[in-house]
Amino acid sequence: MDCTLCLAEMETPIWRDGSCRVILVRDHDYPGFCRVVWHEHVAEMSDLTAPAQRHLMNVVLATETALRQLMQPDKINLASLGNVVPHLHWHVVPRFRNDRHFPQPIWGIPQREGARHETPAVQALAGAIVTALTELTAG
Amino acid sequence: MDCTLCLAEMETPIWRDGSCRVILVRDHDYPGFCRVVWHEHVAEMSDLTAPAQRHLMNVVLATETALRQLMQPDKINLASLGNVVPHLHWHVVPRFRNDRHFPQPIWGIPQREGARHETPAVQALAGAIVTALTELTAG
Repeated sequence: MDCTLCLAEMETPIWRDGSCRVILVRDHDYPGFCRVVWHEHVAEMSDLTAPAQRHLMNVVLATETALRQLMQPDKINLASLGNVVPHLHWHVVPRFRNDRHFPQPIWGIPQREGARHETPAVQALAGAIVTALTELTAG
Repeated sequence: MDCTLCLAEMETPIWRDGSCRVILVRDHDYPGFCRVVWHEHVAEMSDLTAPAQRHLMNVVLATETALRQLMQPDKINLASLGNVVPHLHWHVVPRFRNDRHFPQPIWGIPQREGARHETPAVQALAGAIVTALTELTAG
């Protein structure tokens, strides 16, 4: 097995449970960029059962809520691509009008050098994810 | 109101209900590319209630399932960006190893001219979405 998301040696999860984990991606241009990784090596959302899909999306959307609370970005971008690493994972990216690619996707052509924004503290982010997840699963 | 997704003049939905609609995007390079658009003008998934989030994701994932059944792509890409048009919508993109950008996102740098693939028939796609949605909401 040579899937980098199965090996996960370089990661420091900020939250995890038995199904998935949230990683803070250390991207100089995109502070707060998080990746939500499903532990099991499957490729697509539709490879999961309906309850597993709901759980993973709840974690993705709790991460979105936490990042909005802590960073007040102009937009959130969500994406599950996996063309390079076909192991199910979601990108949750806080976007700002003055960031490196706005309004293009972060995989597009850079538009400018990009302004700096503060990365939220890991503990604050983890706490906000737990709170948002609790509210979502009660809703 | 000048939001293009509120006006929706150029669209032909292949499926719709009271909350959202599925559009077949006529992209020469990406046959089967669908867009799932929430009717109400909101920007983010976390602006929806939890039941509304689940419903929209069920429609997105039913579209994914239908496209996999009809096209057998090498990968599905899902993305909710909205930096240009901040009206909640999802891109559901069947990807093939020989398409224009693979393994890059479709917003990245083209890798080749890109092989042609068949666009599924609209009626077959609509039928497969309904079937997949029924199964998902029962699950």
